[in-house]
Amino acid sequence: MNSKGFATGIWTFGPCPDRFCVEGYKPPRRMEEYLDDLVKVKDLTGVMMHYPDPVDEQKAEAVRRALEERNLALASLDVDLFSNPQFARGSLMSPQPKIRKKAIEMTKRSLDLAEQLGSEVVNLWPGQDGFDYPFQIDYREQWDLLLDALEEVASYNPRVKLSLEYKLREPRTHSTIATSGVALFLSQIVQLPNVGVTIDLGHSLNCKESPANVVALLDKFKKLFVLHLNDNFRDWDDDMVVGTVHFWETLEFIYYLYHSDYQGWLGLDIFPYREDPILACSLSIENIKWLLEVVAKIDSQTLRSFQKEGNALEALRYLKSQI
Amino acid sequence: MNSKGFATGIWTFGPCPDRFCVEGYKPPRRMEEYLDDLVKVKDLTGVMMHYPDPVDEQKAEAVRRALEERNLALASLDVDLFSNPQFARGSLMSPQPKIRKKAIEMTKRSLDLAEQLGSEVVNLWPGQDGFDYPFQIDYREQWDLLLDALEEVASYNPRVKLSLEYKLREPRTHSTIATSGVALFLSQIVQLPNVGVTIDLGHSLNCKESPANVVALLDKFKKLFVLHLNDNFRDWDDDMVVGTVHFWETLEFIYYLYHSDYQGWLGLDIFPYREDPILACSLSIENIKWLLEVVAKIDSQTLRSFQKEGNALEALRYLKSQI
Amino acid sequence: MNSKGFATGIWTFGPCPDRFCVEGYKPPRRMEEYLDDLVKVKDLTGVMMHYPDPVDEQKAEAVRRALEERNLALASLDVDLFSNPQFARGSLMSPQPKIRKKAIEMTKRSLDLAEQLGSEVVNLWPGQDGFDYPFQIDYREQWDLLLDALEEVASYNPRVKLSLEYKLREPRTHSTIATSGVALFLSQIVQLPNVGVTIDLGHSLNCKESPANVVALLDKFKKLFVLHLNDNFRDWDDDMVVGTVHFWETLEFIYYLYHSDYQGWLGLDIFPYREDPILACSLSIENIKWLLEVVAKIDSQTLRSFQKEGNALEALRYLKSQI
Amino acid sequence: MNSKGFATGIWTFGPCPDRFCVEGYKPPRRMEEYLDDLVKVKDLTGVMMHYPDPVDEQKAEAVRRALEERNLALASLDVDLFSNPQFARGSLMSPQPKIRKKAIEMTKRSLDLAEQLGSEVVNLWPGQDGFDYPFQIDYREQWDLLLDALEEVASYNPRVKLSLEYKLREPRTHSTIATSGVALFLSQIVQLPNVGVTIDLGHSLNCKESPANVVALLDKFKKLFVLHLNDNFRDWDDDMVVGTVHFWETLEFIYYLYHSDYQGWLGLDIFPYREDPILACSLSIENIKWLLEVVAKIDSQTLRSFQKEGNALEALRYLKSQI
Repeated sequence: MNSKGFATGIWTFGPCPDRFCVEGYKPPRRMEEYLDDLVKVKDLTGVMMHYPDPVDEQKAEAVRRALEERNLALASLDVDLFSNPQFARGSLMSPQPKIRKKAIEMTKRSLDLAEQLGSEVVNLWPGQDGFDYPFQIDYREQWDLLLDALEEVASYNPRVKLSLEYKLREPRTHSTIATSGVALFLSQIVQLPNVGVTIDLGHSLNCKESPANVVALLDKFKKLFVLHLNDNFRDWDDDMVVGTVHFWETLEFIYYLYHSDYQGWLGLDIFPYREDPILACSLSIENIKWLLEVVAKIDSQTLRSFQKEGNALEALRYLKSQI
Repeated sequence: MNSKGFATGIWTFGPCPDRFCVEGYKPPRRMEEYLDDLVKVKDLTGVMMHYPDPVDEQKAEAVRRALEERNLALASLDVDLFSNPQFARGSLMSPQPKIRKKAIEMTKRSLDLAEQLGSEVVNLWPGQDGFDYPFQIDYREQWDLLLDALEEVASYNPRVKLSLEYKLREPRTHSTIATSGVALFLSQIVQLPNVGVTIDLGHSLNCKESPANVVALLDKFKKLFVLHLNDNFRDWDDDMVVGTVHFWETLEFIYYLYHSDYQGWLGLDIFPYREDPILACSLSIENIKWLLEVVAKIDSQTLRSFQKEGNALEALRYLKSQI
Repeated sequence: MNSKGFATGIWTFGPCPDRFCVEGYKPPRRMEEYLDDLVKVKDLTGVMMHYPDPVDEQKAEAVRRALEERNLALASLDVDLFSNPQFARGSLMSPQPKIRKKAIEMTKRSLDLAEQLGSEVVNLWPGQDGFDYPFQIDYREQWDLLLDALEEVASYNPRVKLSLEYKLREPRTHSTIATSGVALFLSQIVQLPNVGVTIDLGHSLNCKESPANVVALLDKFKKLFVLHLNDNFRDWDDDMVVGTVHFWETLEFIYYLYHSDYQGWLGLDIFPYREDPILACSLSIENIKWLLEVVAKIDSQTLRSFQKEGNALEALRYLKSQI
Repeated sequence: MNSKGFATGIWTFGPCPDRFCVEGYKPPRRMEEYLDDLVKVKDLTGVMMHYPDPVDEQKAEAVRRALEERNLALASLDVDLFSNPQFARGSLMSPQPKIRKKAIEMTKRSLDLAEQLGSEVVNLWPGQDGFDYPFQIDYREQWDLLLDALEEVASYNPRVKLSLEYKLREPRTHSTIATSGVALFLSQIVQLPNVGVTIDLGHSLNCKESPANVVALLDKFKKLFVLHLNDNFRDWDDDMVVGTVHFWETLEFIYYLYHSDYQGWLGLDIFPYREDPILACSLSIENIKWLLEVVAKIDSQTLRSFQKEGNALEALRYLKSQI
């Protein structure tokens, strides 16, 4: 790994609403205020933002300046295909041509703006592309529409990476790009080198995957493009502070990252509904740095000697001795 | 069962937001407009509402009139202890005396207003009472505060039933009143006959319970007070249209209800984010009536003869023949 | 779909043990007795068996005769890489060369014997290939070993199909070939046309997939090779009678199969621990035939018209009218 | 807490079969050989055993001697109501009077033998009492039969504690005594002081409970009788080495135990299928002792000051500083 440093989604500093506390657990503020708080977090030097809010063609220059003033980099520009109710029943795979065209157009603009603002990647999470009920959509058409859309947008601007963020569910009961396997398959089948995969640590846990194993698989095929770090209780995307639930599996995830060719940001995607966002980011970074220190101490030969035998218990005992 | 008929939560007709589509998938409207839509649903004669919005002391008379004009009954008046961010870290079990007092006060007012408006029950879902992270709260204090609060509110107005709605999680990662077992235990230990339990069908599925079995257990101890009907995919409270995922278990749930002493409403608690609420309620009621027809045809002696042997397959084959 | 008819695993008729009732819920019997029971099930004309027990080079002729006498076809010959404790820590991806070689050898023999006995496919479920604890194995090495092994065995006898059966977990806490996405990716990346994927309906439910959606995806890429039909409660591979839990999703699965190019068997993979296996197979087949009848009545144009709008509720209402 | 020390189930040292590796991952040995291995584990001074195998009236004296020779105490004598296929469809709640009588009789004998052998508690896990399919049993009858049986056995020998071990599922898809709430309710409603509850840490995680919170609840009502310690990945009872998956929640569990009135054993209930049982027990105990050391360092006042605010993140940061 040769990471660009720590980044976070700007939404971490927002109201963090849910369906029961609709106004959000905190008051909304201006983008600049979010950034002012963000730079109070030690080691945070990148920020992930969405198109078209807070970044669009009109606001691009203001955003560039706001970042520059604070010595922040745009870690990724992500296209927001979920917050507008027009995408309620799908964006890139919407069976309604007009809506799908809009989604494709927005993704293209995100790619261009990302390039303009110095971000090498657009994270693509088509959260509304999926279904809620059995028989709701035609699955065959869905795959055709999605693959065509991916090809169109990824070939439109091949200088910017397009990273597919898989997620099992939410806001739909079933997402189309649900698991690492599906995302990897799609990124392979489109045959475009700028298409890769985002691992959101919590999404991976929610799929009951081993996140470390996903790192190994994606890295083998050079498809690990973006990281979203967080934690949860496995059954939902709780977007909690990194390392507060899964200690061993987060350590293992960091271990495989450390030994991978990953070149991107260590991006936080947390939703501190009731928590102070500065503290939530800080503790996440402290935890990751703690784990990185442990990882640096692990002697790979020793670990491998236990793994050759599948001796998990001696491996864990050895790791414990390094904490 | 001797049900009062079908009811629904008025929120079914609202914007149905989630954390990604914050403004909601539909525009908000006035309470009267919701009720106008509600009465378009065949067989819907009751409505569940929250205190203090849309019902409080000031609006009570207007609500009474709006219901009367449409021949609707108030099925239950539920206290909203979740939407105001002041309750973000707990209501009835908040360690902050002022906030807890506010929650207790609101629950008492709900009881009084329910009585005034002709509803015999207040549904109590303390959704913010729980925790998100390990070590976040003192669990011992939590149980003391909750039990004391339950005793205080339930004994305050013993003429109105107080029904505890359990839920595994959301909006917290862990609710305090999480399962049917905990709710039944609490309702027993407070030793007040007006305290009972709400089964939300989807919450029960989310707990990996057999909802029919919960009906049998609560009915045995005369603690089945309120029903919330819906469906989901087991891992989350999707609040879907009744019977669209779990056919056999919903049939079984209705079967046990039918043979229980339940005297309340058949209340819908669905969240039709992207669906027409009139259609969502209508299909829910059609499905329940379909299942009730099947249930009425089931010969209990025949079914029991298979159950004596634990012969699930002949039981299911017999049931299939009655569909 | 142009299916070869109904088949079942011969293990359906065995003792069906679990870790708590080790001797099994029923006494073991001879293979011929299992087959005698099997032919009592209406419409069952195929059987799935394992190499090397009950089929190996020595027993092949006796098995051929036993099947012929009962007018049964060998639906698939599956290689058993799980029951022998030598494979406890992996078979095809075992880091121990001798064990891995043994597993590869057994798979090759299964391919040859399948060809000899007239089965066009070997189902490959490497159940012990995976891991239990964090840090137990080297994930990078795992993928290399597995891919190499798949290439070696699949290219060894290209006249027989090799179908990868994915499963989330059990007997390991994590399987290597865990989801449909991973299985599809592997079958694509090996670039051998005789490598495809098995959908075990219950495994798919356990992955929280939409099984019908998986049919659509695999069929699009001509990778749907084998079916295992059963049901469960989503969180474990309960191997229950088909259609006894998930009515709508099983109907939807059958609907997509019906409209697919699938040419193989409708294979049952159930584990009737406490049930009569004849009854369990019979009810499974009755349920599938019932669903096939419904599917045949569904007018695709009508359904598509609702799907164009994402109108799940009218779609389901229409389907209900066809039951 | 004032624990009696560490104990383990003797089954830890057995073949550990599963349904796919029926003979077990290790060869079976004699009871004495298991005990010889057990005493090699540092700090292990108690053992949990089952009636009627390896302990029954005939073998009681030999067992007593074998334990005495090794300075081991019988931590609990548990009644085995699951391994004999006669109980396949239920034991204490079997609708077949003869089978139910047998189960009741066996439980009574366990109580007497426990007393005779110096164990103060019988752990009661009626693993076959439950159901697999919808409509399989009559739930109302089930609760009656179970409650009657509990009363009968618990009042038969009030000098021995009877501890109900709840479990969500396995070997049935649904257990009757499924959650801590149900177990606590049952232990309360029978009104016999010798009836309490066993927390199996992994069962609690599998119920998606907070195990520490369950400790607090049971301790408040003096119903925490027995502990089974292990770990898992939440969705199944993997019976893994303690602390190898859930670090924070295991720490929190130990913290609440430490501050409880628990007087029993720290019992391991692990199933080291592929692991060396001596190592598996040793690492479990090492991990628990490590956590106990951390717990001893935690200043409750400091922790409480964060909890008063619901400030989980400062609480966790403080805890991290104590590791």
